[in-house]
Amino acid sequence: MDCVDLNSDMGEGFGVYRLGDDTAIMEFVSSVNLACGWHASDPLIMQEMVGLAQKSNLGLGAHPGYPDLLGFGRRHLNISPKEARVYTLYQVGALFAFAKAQKTPLQHVKLHGSFYNQAAYDLKLALEVLKGIRDFDPHLIVLAPSLSPMAKLGQDMGLKIAEEVFADRHYLDDGRLVPRDHPKAFVSDLNEALMRVVCMAKERKVQTISGKSIDIVADSICVHGDNPQAVWLAMQIREVLLKNGVAIKPLGEFIRGTH
Amino acid sequence: MDCVDLNSDMGEGFGVYRLGDDTAIMEFVSSVNLACGWHASDPLIMQEMVGLAQKSNLGLGAHPGYPDLLGFGRRHLNISPKEARVYTLYQVGALFAFAKAQKTPLQHVKLHGSFYNQAAYDLKLALEVLKGIRDFDPHLIVLAPSLSPMAKLGQDMGLKIAEEVFADRHYLDDGRLVPRDHPKAFVSDLNEALMRVVCMAKERKVQTISGKSIDIVADSICVHGDNPQAVWLAMQIREVLLKNGVAIKPLGEFIRGTH
Amino acid sequence: MDCVDLNSDMGEGFGVYRLGDDTAIMEFVSSVNLACGWHASDPLIMQEMVGLAQKSNLGLGAHPGYPDLLGFGRRHLNISPKEARVYTLYQVGALFAFAKAQKTPLQHVKLHGSFYNQAAYDLKLALEVLKGIRDFDPHLIVLAPSLSPMAKLGQDMGLKIAEEVFADRHYLDDGRLVPRDHPKAFVSDLNEALMRVVCMAKERKVQTISGKSIDIVADSICVHGDNPQAVWLAMQIREVLLKNGVAIKPLGEFIRGTH
Amino acid sequence: MDCVDLNSDMGEGFGVYRLGDDTAIMEFVSSVNLACGWHASDPLIMQEMVGLAQKSNLGLGAHPGYPDLLGFGRRHLNISPKEARVYTLYQVGALFAFAKAQKTPLQHVKLHGSFYNQAAYDLKLALEVLKGIRDFDPHLIVLAPSLSPMAKLGQDMGLKIAEEVFADRHYLDDGRLVPRDHPKAFVSDLNEALMRVVCMAKERKVQTISGKSIDIVADSICVHGDNPQAVWLAMQIREVLLKNGVAIKPLGEFIRGTH
Repeated sequence: MDCVDLNSDMGEGFGVYRLGDDTAIMEFVSSVNLACGWHASDPLIMQEMVGLAQKSNLGLGAHPGYPDLLGFGRRHLNISPKEARVYTLYQVGALFAFAKAQKTPLQHVKLHGSFYNQAAYDLKLALEVLKGIRDFDPHLIVLAPSLSPMAKLGQDMGLKIAEEVFADRHYLDDGRLVPRDHPKAFVSDLNEALMRVVCMAKERKVQTISGKSIDIVADSICVHGDNPQAVWLAMQIREVLLKNGVAIKPLGEFIRGTH
Repeated sequence: MDCVDLNSDMGEGFGVYRLGDDTAIMEFVSSVNLACGWHASDPLIMQEMVGLAQKSNLGLGAHPGYPDLLGFGRRHLNISPKEARVYTLYQVGALFAFAKAQKTPLQHVKLHGSFYNQAAYDLKLALEVLKGIRDFDPHLIVLAPSLSPMAKLGQDMGLKIAEEVFADRHYLDDGRLVPRDHPKAFVSDLNEALMRVVCMAKERKVQTISGKSIDIVADSICVHGDNPQAVWLAMQIREVLLKNGVAIKPLGEFIRGTH
Repeated sequence: MDCVDLNSDMGEGFGVYRLGDDTAIMEFVSSVNLACGWHASDPLIMQEMVGLAQKSNLGLGAHPGYPDLLGFGRRHLNISPKEARVYTLYQVGALFAFAKAQKTPLQHVKLHGSFYNQAAYDLKLALEVLKGIRDFDPHLIVLAPSLSPMAKLGQDMGLKIAEEVFADRHYLDDGRLVPRDHPKAFVSDLNEALMRVVCMAKERKVQTISGKSIDIVADSICVHGDNPQAVWLAMQIREVLLKNGVAIKPLGEFIRGTH
Repeated sequence: MDCVDLNSDMGEGFGVYRLGDDTAIMEFVSSVNLACGWHASDPLIMQEMVGLAQKSNLGLGAHPGYPDLLGFGRRHLNISPKEARVYTLYQVGALFAFAKAQKTPLQHVKLHGSFYNQAAYDLKLALEVLKGIRDFDPHLIVLAPSLSPMAKLGQDMGLKIAEEVFADRHYLDDGRLVPRDHPKAFVSDLNEALMRVVCMAKERKVQTISGKSIDIVADSICVHGDNPQAVWLAMQIREVLLKNGVAIKPLGEFIRGTH
């Protein structure tokens, strides 16, 4: 049977601030990415979110970002490969402490925002991030954009790589996402988004913005939970996948290393 | 044979900044406390310092502080017991990542500055700090001031507690340090400091500021490395201890839990 | 005619975060306190809020807080008098830049949270805060709790001091607020709160928690805008004051220095 | 008579940290750029440095940088033009508070590090930075690289622009600096550096890395004070300029707006 993971960011508040309704999305996803205090979150939130994820049997992931709370980690910051390694390790370790203290395993690492986008296509950054994760724990699954250089590099290194796709975004012919400022960046029609998700999960194909059909690997589908509409879309995606015979499971149940 | 640990803070720079000469002190101590990025240090420094400690076979400790880089963690900050727990876990986890990635064990946790002083004598803070550390790893040694409520609480919980003394500070009759702003806070005479160290390590006694002799436990002696004079004092302490038949070893070699 | 100012905090978001509905409260108050980027707010928010305050002809105030975004400036932090001075100057200057660039005057300074509470009753802190403000601009009005040592000190220095009262809080016999953790800290009955406000504004009296009536000066009444209920309370306070012949005006229109 | 300003960064410590010997360079320069707490410095340092600059009759400048203390403001951060405006205003205002409280005028603004480099050649950023400074105080002098788009734009806006050159750096044919990672980025020979400085100040020419002579405007020469060698170079530059009949004065004494 076909199998896919649904992942969502969670725990993106800070101090007195909250962002989105973290608990609403938990019902519909199989894995969560928890911010680690750099682009968002703080130790109280991290502890609470680990507990919530554990209760809901969700795959638990660290979500390291740039040291830019002011910009929510979405702004390009020109860090070195060495910095990429240690920024990842620091944040993964911080989240790991809460997982270990609550006796729940850490399943995966997914970089956040601009860090995710830069490392995916810059092999020097990607290499150091992957080596850092491998040195910490070679069994951690790493999420990267489907077909990205980072995904391929991680597979070559024998790491457990989960290739990720986006339900509500259009793709270029080379497998990259259409940039956010492009008028056709987003899939605005709900039914189209749902059909694409099923196609990516079952046929491993997606139609690019030029009309071409390209191969794609959908180990995990990224959904959002930061507004009621997003939660509703996540629910629809879950339903349409199940109806089409695609099982939804945390990455840890089906991703294997290539070695 | 009598046995004692000498500990010192290390890796207290941040970004372009450096504080003290971290490598000078390493020759004379058996354990180091590494700042974790809150009151000082950053991921690049943490990775480097873990490597240096490993090379020198020093006991490796996490040194969590208040989130106050501007005040170097030395200012009282009124945190809750719950915050004390998660601030400790976050920082211990962050440092642990670098230790694990370099395949070197984490030996101990010592709180920094104002966090150290407040938790030592506030049982609500101490309890949550100790529970956090125990939940993360019950084999971690925790440093606390000799005879402090935190030290006793940790022992009652069955944790591995290392009672700490200070070579260059005077004590009150109740076993607390004479506050820094008191004219007799510091032991200014070198020979007196050395005699006191030997007396604490071998006789388990110290003479208080009032002239009384009280019991004290010196599992570890705190020395400083932030200036050449401090390094020189550390060297003298090492020598006088060895000359008096006191072995100097990392805490991990002789501290046991009470359970 | 009796005259009073209604003040409220505004612009307490940070980066992607927002807190409360800043625009709802603007209709009912005469002055606003804008956070300056330390306990909350950022330069984009500060610029926007200055523009909104200007459009609504509200008295514009700087709201300096402790360097503790994580704790929203509500936690006691043990700063020195010298630090109190420069932390105030830094933040007042930062907000002043946006006021000056938009050609709108800065009316007042009100410390935030724990900084407000500590400086009000610690004359060493208060003196340095007041001297800093005076050196920057002796015409700035400073808000302080009615009858507090800081208010008296400022008056003795010839500064323009606005004495502040709280509509929803109970008072002790010495004029201090009943601490927040006391069961009777808050005035829970709406009508009682409204009557107290009128009494404070017109009779310059308030009944303490022990039943005693003490003198109080209500140059400005602090109201909150961080939830719909708070906004509704502010509206009621405004109405009851107007109905009882108390004019509501920004501080700048009626507060004078004592020299 | 020819006239030039010598400028240097100062006050680049933070909390317990210090960087370079701030007082050594003061003897040889006519203007100083004071960090404003984002990439370096804090309110205590800012207050102290303003006082030192005042005592030495140095032109006082604000030195706004990116919000990246960890990277000392040297890393590219992708901020928007709107952010460029408000980040400048915030920091200029913060420093202005210390200048005003000490009754010393603010002379200029010089962006720091990566902010300086990006704004100099990105007209969208430059425009918002310049408009922000103009709205705050149209008499403030703005430093920008000689011949840069930012310098020209500022002149077109009628602002007081000081064109800046670097004594120890090589230039490309288009007037830009040779990037730091190029083997010929720096002028390593002291005598060559001194001759170039005199040539830029008197002839308004510089020889590029390709051997071509191009026009350049040297209103101000940037020198460093972060190590003894740099201070010594600054002293030599000062002497060779004076010997060649070039007066050294703060920018405020000779820079005029073009309107």
